[in-house]
Amino acid sequence: MLIGIDAGGTSTRAAVLDRSGRALGYGVGGGGNPVALGPALASRGIGDAVEMALRAARTAASDTDQDGGAAILAMAGASSFSAPGAMAARVRELSGAAQVEVVSDLFAMFASGTPHQRGYVLVSGTGAAALRIEDDTVAAAADGLGWLLGDAGSGFWIGHRAVRAALGGLSGHGPATAMTSMLQEELGLAGSTERTPRGRLLVVETAIETFYQMQPIELAKFASLAFRAAKVAEPRFPGDAVDEEFAEGADRVAAKILTSARRRLIRTLAAVRIPELPGPVVLGGSVAQRLPGLAAAVRRSLVKAAPAEGASGAPGARAASSTPAGPEPDVRIVPDGLVGASVLALRKAGIPVDQEMFDRVTASLADIRR
Amino acid sequence: MLIGIDAGGTSTRAAVLDRSGRALGYGVGGGGNPVALGPALASRGIGDAVEMALRAARTAASDTDQDGGAAILAMAGASSFSAPGAMAARVRELSGAAQVEVVSDLFAMFASGTPHQRGYVLVSGTGAAALRIEDDTVAAAADGLGWLLGDAGSGFWIGHRAVRAALGGLSGHGPATAMTSMLQEELGLAGSTERTPRGRLLVVETAIETFYQMQPIELAKFASLAFRAAKVAEPRFPGDAVDEEFAEGADRVAAKILTSARRRLIRTLAAVRIPELPGPVVLGGSVAQRLPGLAAAVRRSLVKAAPAEGASGAPGARAASSTPAGPEPDVRIVPDGLVGASVLALRKAGIPVDQEMFDRVTASLADIRR
Repeated sequence: MLIGIDAGGTSTRAAVLDRSGRALGYGVGGGGNPVALGPALASRGIGDAVEMALRAARTAASDTDQDGGAAILAMAGASSFSAPGAMAARVRELSGAAQVEVVSDLFAMFASGTPHQRGYVLVSGTGAAALRIEDDTVAAAADGLGWLLGDAGSGFWIGHRAVRAALGGLSGHGPATAMTSMLQEELGLAGSTERTPRGRLLVVETAIETFYQMQPIELAKFASLAFRAAKVAEPRFPGDAVDEEFAEGADRVAAKILTSARRRLIRTLAAVRIPELPGPVVLGGSVAQRLPGLAAAVRRSLVKAAPAEGASGAPGARAASSTPAGPEPDVRIVPDGLVGASVLALRKAGIPVDQEMFDRVTASLADIRR
Repeated sequence: MLIGIDAGGTSTRAAVLDRSGRALGYGVGGGGNPVALGPALASRGIGDAVEMALRAARTAASDTDQDGGAAILAMAGASSFSAPGAMAARVRELSGAAQVEVVSDLFAMFASGTPHQRGYVLVSGTGAAALRIEDDTVAAAADGLGWLLGDAGSGFWIGHRAVRAALGGLSGHGPATAMTSMLQEELGLAGSTERTPRGRLLVVETAIETFYQMQPIELAKFASLAFRAAKVAEPRFPGDAVDEEFAEGADRVAAKILTSARRRLIRTLAAVRIPELPGPVVLGGSVAQRLPGLAAAVRRSLVKAAPAEGASGAPGARAASSTPAGPEPDVRIVPDGLVGASVLALRKAGIPVDQEMFDRVTASLADIRR
């Protein structure tokens, strides 16, 4: 039996597969990031997801071989934190897996999009970063500097700007935006124009009290204000990806925040790109999945960055190169690192993962998650 | 004897004046803001400044009347905090002043620029806000929402962007900027290209460790990176104001941050402006004092916002109105609220402050501070 686990900040996903790459069980649990949540909570989130997946697998296939096998646990900060050891022990205890390896969440995200062992991954969830992967190791990294210093184009970055813009529209130091009334609603003060004895709007004062009591990183959840105001659809199910341009009636301030996020993410990807390695490029994370036009913009940036084929300086060469003749750049959006963790578990058990095996794992996990 | 005190986050200034508006003594102390520093430290900063000013005044005029008099203590958060009472008591104890009033720092800043009792003040120091003042009270306020939610164009806002841009240039997810080498120097890693065992630049890792251990607001002091990279001169003395455009050789990324700050501040001022009250506009705070072209940009924004005189729709009216015939808008930059606190102390003691008296206080304080 093989186990892939993708432990995120707000939820954990686990899958149990057989050696043919077929998913037998799927489970979810609470957040599994020990850095963000502490080891006790993280261990519970991971344990719940693994137990649920194992239970489902035993029901699906009563003759499942319980012993041995390999498990891959993907989580943020895997390389920098000592707690993964404890998390790995918990997985071993529950599953009886002979080998449990902890890998970076970005690495699993990359492996969710391609069976290739070289390419790029650009992630935007609560945070944001890009990696170049060569020979199954990280060859270069950009951003990923956290909410205060970087993570440009991430959920925090968008949520922070959304809340600031909503308040700017209210205080008048920024343009009017639909996000203002959404924030008022979130604060339980829909339509309020009440003022405090000090002459300030009650909404402004309440916002100040509310947000300065939070951990700054919690502003990430207010990214939803920008997505809603810009009329961006929600993914229909966890494995689905939205990649469309803005709809009519999108709030201009919100659309501008999302467009800036897109531009910043493309710059982060550009920082790790080298001409010798054209792709594939895997886009992942809750924001990457929903950011309008991200995949298309990444494809355009790749075409632009690629060395012009057959550029000769002859008249007409310029016009010709504006219609690139090369193959469409290989860009894929994935919702999380579950397929990747599963693929890495297969490899850990000595099973080669070619395109056919990869497609089987992907399709079978998509089926079981629906 | 009259005492004006301007208590800021990093330093406190105090002045002792006679009833003619002549400054007899000047003193400085540490930060005097009880919200930021706690009451004990703030009380010491204020006490030191007042004692120093009183000592100087006694030397200058041995026959100084020690009893009675009025003192004005200007500080941020004056209206929202209970500690000002304790600070006022300390001032009373040291000076023997019969009346001690605590006023908002923005209010004192306004009174530092004009003897008028109606107009606007736009402040950018560590934070940023604009007020409309009518009949000596606050009629409208914009921004001032703090580092996380607002303060657009403030020292924090600039410092935060400067540090992010410096790291973006290093990680490659942002354009190259002169601020990168400045930050490396600040971190004691000038010219370092060393990498950690995890493949990250040592400078990036050190920056992450350093900045996430700070209070976020401390990023305000890194505004100096942007000013230095953009080659903006420092004010020569506290009462001086710099108001020039960017010099040649200014770093483009830094200049862009400062230009955005300027634009954001002008928008904050616009939020409290009404056509019926054209001015005066007082600009104050360490950033407002040094931001290239701020006063000129504010003047342009006032001319643009003013109702066109003699606009008739006749041919040529448009061309004529591009050279405004009205008086030059009244815009002044002040370094802090010390003149204002002193002027308010005179008024508190029943002494009317007309333009002549105002000019005497201003000139005499500028002399004593040099």
